[in-house]
Amino acid sequence: MGDLRRDPIVGRWVIMETDHPNTPADYECETHTQKGGLCPFCYGNESMTPTEIDSCRDLNTQANTPGWQVRVVPNKFPALKIEGDIDRRGIGIYDLSNGIGAHEVLIDTPYHDKDIPDLVDEEVEKIILMCCRRSLDLTKDKRFKYIMIFKNYGPAAGASLEHPHTQLIALPMVPKNALEEIKGARAYFEFRERCIFCDMIRQELEDKERIVSQNAHFLSFCPFVSRFPFEIWITPKQHHAYFSHLTPEEIPYLASIIKDTIARVKNIFGNLSYNFIVHSSPANGETGTEGYHWHIEFMPKLMRVAGFEWGSGFYVVPTPPELAAQYLRGEKR
Amino acid sequence: MGDLRRDPIVGRWVIMETDHPNTPADYECETHTQKGGLCPFCYGNESMTPTEIDSCRDLNTQANTPGWQVRVVPNKFPALKIEGDIDRRGIGIYDLSNGIGAHEVLIDTPYHDKDIPDLVDEEVEKIILMCCRRSLDLTKDKRFKYIMIFKNYGPAAGASLEHPHTQLIALPMVPKNALEEIKGARAYFEFRERCIFCDMIRQELEDKERIVSQNAHFLSFCPFVSRFPFEIWITPKQHHAYFSHLTPEEIPYLASIIKDTIARVKNIFGNLSYNFIVHSSPANGETGTEGYHWHIEFMPKLMRVAGFEWGSGFYVVPTPPELAAQYLRGEKR
Repeated sequence: MGDLRRDPIVGRWVIMETDHPNTPADYECETHTQKGGLCPFCYGNESMTPTEIDSCRDLNTQANTPGWQVRVVPNKFPALKIEGDIDRRGIGIYDLSNGIGAHEVLIDTPYHDKDIPDLVDEEVEKIILMCCRRSLDLTKDKRFKYIMIFKNYGPAAGASLEHPHTQLIALPMVPKNALEEIKGARAYFEFRERCIFCDMIRQELEDKERIVSQNAHFLSFCPFVSRFPFEIWITPKQHHAYFSHLTPEEIPYLASIIKDTIARVKNIFGNLSYNFIVHSSPANGETGTEGYHWHIEFMPKLMRVAGFEWGSGFYVVPTPPELAAQYLRGEKR
Repeated sequence: MGDLRRDPIVGRWVIMETDHPNTPADYECETHTQKGGLCPFCYGNESMTPTEIDSCRDLNTQANTPGWQVRVVPNKFPALKIEGDIDRRGIGIYDLSNGIGAHEVLIDTPYHDKDIPDLVDEEVEKIILMCCRRSLDLTKDKRFKYIMIFKNYGPAAGASLEHPHTQLIALPMVPKNALEEIKGARAYFEFRERCIFCDMIRQELEDKERIVSQNAHFLSFCPFVSRFPFEIWITPKQHHAYFSHLTPEEIPYLASIIKDTIARVKNIFGNLSYNFIVHSSPANGETGTEGYHWHIEFMPKLMRVAGFEWGSGFYVVPTPPELAAQYLRGEKR
């Protein structure tokens, strides 16, 4: 049995198991090894992907050939198509739009079996830089209202290709969860004239018990109202609405804390599957960004259970964030 | 590629794959067989569970002994505890409450290996009747604001015991997804002075293409904005706010359509895992129920992928409901 906690941004209640919490050993998470084989994302196989959109590559090397460190290509099986005007219409009480958008794949590294913690800092910086660059470029297209950046790593997280990669989806509308967060943050801002994320960061820095790690610009912590065991948020300490407005000074600090955070999770659970999602302000929107603060939500895939939580929005979390953070800081084993 | 559809109740957008949709053969869902063994829910093992709360049983048989058809017991590992007063408080910007609530298990049948489609109609009626009875009884406790009734069937749906059972959780607050639906339905009601579910049912009955089956009192259909492939909703055709206010005349019709719906899914996919959740109006609430219409949401567990959808609220659905309904009606194989 436990306590009930309410998310101050979106109003979600979760049950946090505090009496008999799960320790890491209680999770039977599936670890996996990269099998290799013929992979369209591997170095030397550039001709197997659609034509390159952008890349970080050695001087004097050509697009769609070796010589790259990070490579962006259109998704071969895109969920949305890039051409056309947006046509929103009703069908009786329902709303429909044609599927306009962009769906890009950022290949994180030429190496099939290297995840983020296995890369050197500069390689992770290039991934972040490229995410910003693609995000800014997609934002120029006024049809797009939201640029979603996320990573599915491992089969249990829904990765269909095992070579580590990140995805960008540009959407003609703001997805529901992002909108809810923005509205919740705005309501708080209107009431208090302060950013709720800034207040949360201040409280976490004081409380200390949910902190995973920190550096000059970023904080990594297990949120008070985690939905998943060992869920971790990474936030800039300073108020910034847009991920893509990261400064050259900040990028190395972000690369370092992302690498460190994932490494800590893998130290405990091995090569497990995970998802991570960048939550940023909408692009090209009239939606006010006052009081919204970009951040990354990292979710290790420790439990298979899903349908009920999906359907009800009601989460039972077997490990409280205070305990998860102790394991992640290495104070418990 | 596909179209984008917006849920008229909660405002969620999903991408519906209409160009190259998945057919049933494209899903590698895990089917399973009930293994049996020593099971606390089996006939004759009544002493292995906590003390019976209620049951449908033969005359002259005693509680906690054989002779039952449906049996309700407290969950041995409850998420919430039943004793105490609700104590809501703030910790800085966060909200906390002690974990007061009820968590009951309804054992559907004495038979370990019988799922709902394997039962005779009268047995399914007893399950429904017992759900109503427990729901009404829990509603008498004024601390409880929402009675959640749901079923996790099979390992992939999160069932920890394989003997078929249903769960009831009584909560001191309304869960987020229920609240969103209620608010969305109320906004529509205020704008149009009509129930959005009634309008949806009218449109589905006219369009016909998403209908799975129907009888005098209930409609089973694949919703226009499904979040999951082969998702099915079962709704009363008449406007009713509360599941627990089902009339004796309606119960046999509901039993029949639930049984029929699950049987249709299992005819296509075998003994797959599924979740189903009763969405009803809050108990003891000042929350208006005008314009809210109870219904059941049935979600077969066809895809493992989860973390990203969980985190973003953004769904990509590989089979549109119009196609799923054709398979479920037996028009396609």
